[in-house]
Amino acid sequence: MFTGLSAFPLTPVHDDQVDLPSYGGLIDRLVEAGVDSIGVLGSTGSYVYLDRDERSAVIEATVERAAGVPVIAGIGALRTSRVRSLAEDAQVAGADAVLLAPVSYQPLTEDDVTGLYEEVTAELSVPLVVYDNPGTTHFTFSLDLYAHIGSLPHVAAIKIPPSRGTVNEVRERVQSIRSVIPEHVRLGISGDGYAATGLLAGCDAWFSSIGGTLPQAMAALARPALAGDQEAALAESERLRPLWELIGEAGSVRVVAAIAELLELVEEPCLPRPLRGLTGAGRERVRAVVEGLGLRD
Amino acid sequence: MFTGLSAFPLTPVHDDQVDLPSYGGLIDRLVEAGVDSIGVLGSTGSYVYLDRDERSAVIEATVERAAGVPVIAGIGALRTSRVRSLAEDAQVAGADAVLLAPVSYQPLTEDDVTGLYEEVTAELSVPLVVYDNPGTTHFTFSLDLYAHIGSLPHVAAIKIPPSRGTVNEVRERVQSIRSVIPEHVRLGISGDGYAATGLLAGCDAWFSSIGGTLPQAMAALARPALAGDQEAALAESERLRPLWELIGEAGSVRVVAAIAELLELVEEPCLPRPLRGLTGAGRERVRAVVEGLGLRD
Repeated sequence: MFTGLSAFPLTPVHDDQVDLPSYGGLIDRLVEAGVDSIGVLGSTGSYVYLDRDERSAVIEATVERAAGVPVIAGIGALRTSRVRSLAEDAQVAGADAVLLAPVSYQPLTEDDVTGLYEEVTAELSVPLVVYDNPGTTHFTFSLDLYAHIGSLPHVAAIKIPPSRGTVNEVRERVQSIRSVIPEHVRLGISGDGYAATGLLAGCDAWFSSIGGTLPQAMAALARPALAGDQEAALAESERLRPLWELIGEAGSVRVVAAIAELLELVEEPCLPRPLRGLTGAGRERVRAVVEGLGLRD
Repeated sequence: MFTGLSAFPLTPVHDDQVDLPSYGGLIDRLVEAGVDSIGVLGSTGSYVYLDRDERSAVIEATVERAAGVPVIAGIGALRTSRVRSLAEDAQVAGADAVLLAPVSYQPLTEDDVTGLYEEVTAELSVPLVVYDNPGTTHFTFSLDLYAHIGSLPHVAAIKIPPSRGTVNEVRERVQSIRSVIPEHVRLGISGDGYAATGLLAGCDAWFSSIGGTLPQAMAALARPALAGDQEAALAESERLRPLWELIGEAGSVRVVAAIAELLELVEEPCLPRPLRGLTGAGRERVRAVVEGLGLRD
């Protein structure tokens, strides 16, 4: 379940309601593109902005349409007891695995984060992906913490942040993590612009934000990278550089939302307020990149 | 309502329940110490960790015990529609004013934050304090944004982050903000170790985290600072330096929680998980500082 391309769809929110019909259409695209797993309610899926009932409805809608593709559901929240409830909800809704980031308001310590994962994994019946996303949680995992949390029951994978550098440099980073975690724990790269390098460097999976909306295009990058075809993978990633630059400037979720709106996959606007979509010149740049790169899927 | 010492009590959470009896005792201490206002459900009050019902119960309990001291209630949440509901709840529960930080998961833009304050203030019937707390929101207000948001209806004060430097240096910063906001908008300093300087530099109020638990001690610092007695205020702030150093290392909320536990004002542990209180050497340092500085109130 934790190998290959894992696509993270956005959760369209229109008029302050989750737009489940459009969401179902996004899931159909992922199934058609043959992604290896579907990551619902990730950062791109706006999980922390949604209530408990909304999250359950999203997971249920995904499982219904996923046609057997494994579903990994985000269960992060600020308070441990709420994470535990969401973990239970996700399992009841049929998720095959859960994904947990140490969501923070007060800066978290290693002890806090250790306790969070210990409490949540103690009650789980499905595998858990550790979601290391310092850009939104403002928490940095140390290697020691990867080692401890990687050894907890049900921990099956770690979604690591983008790693800059050449394939060899990233391989060193990946190996330094592998050397401290159990062998069965998979490593997944995130940060779509760093995915080719991450996969070539030995990551098992790519947790893709753009892949949730443009699965065919991201599968075309994942294939050579997973096959170890360095030249083809790096060339394709280089071709997509204008897209990675957009993400670097505006953030994945706003770029994904703009693409989904431009392709008329969702109603506009599709982000939960206070988040505003890209307008004006930002939006025109997204349009130009989508058209220039032929990203209509 | 937005001048003098505004004390922000913690919201004790024990066994995953808000401990309202202990909380009531904290409010009594604030009233006895004669604070100028009570700031409930601030960062020290763990607002973002609490559900809607819990927050209403905390505000109601405060208003009941506040004996007429004005109550300012935090209404921050990740999603604008939820902030609007919390604003309504706070007013129904009897809050005299509300306090709003741009709580973030995805990094917020100036447009997002502008929209948030516009939407929320459009529906308010009580004054609003803009809560600028980059340490927890990871959002930085520009002067232009202060100017725009400061001009919105119902905006009555801005809680500004700690400002380092001498009284003259901080006065320049305070004046630069004053020069762009309407005259009726009050400025309150936060960061207890910077309060004396902030008040001497012309801030109207001090929004105090430690003051929520040690109101007498903080009132003794506020008095000379508000009276413009620079020598006495800076000397008292200097005397309290070991306390400010603790806060710098462990963060206000953990230091406040440890003090409240050591003084047996609340049941231990009193923070919502995943937050863990200080233990071992950290806790012993708090004990030594409390005893060394005679902070038992």
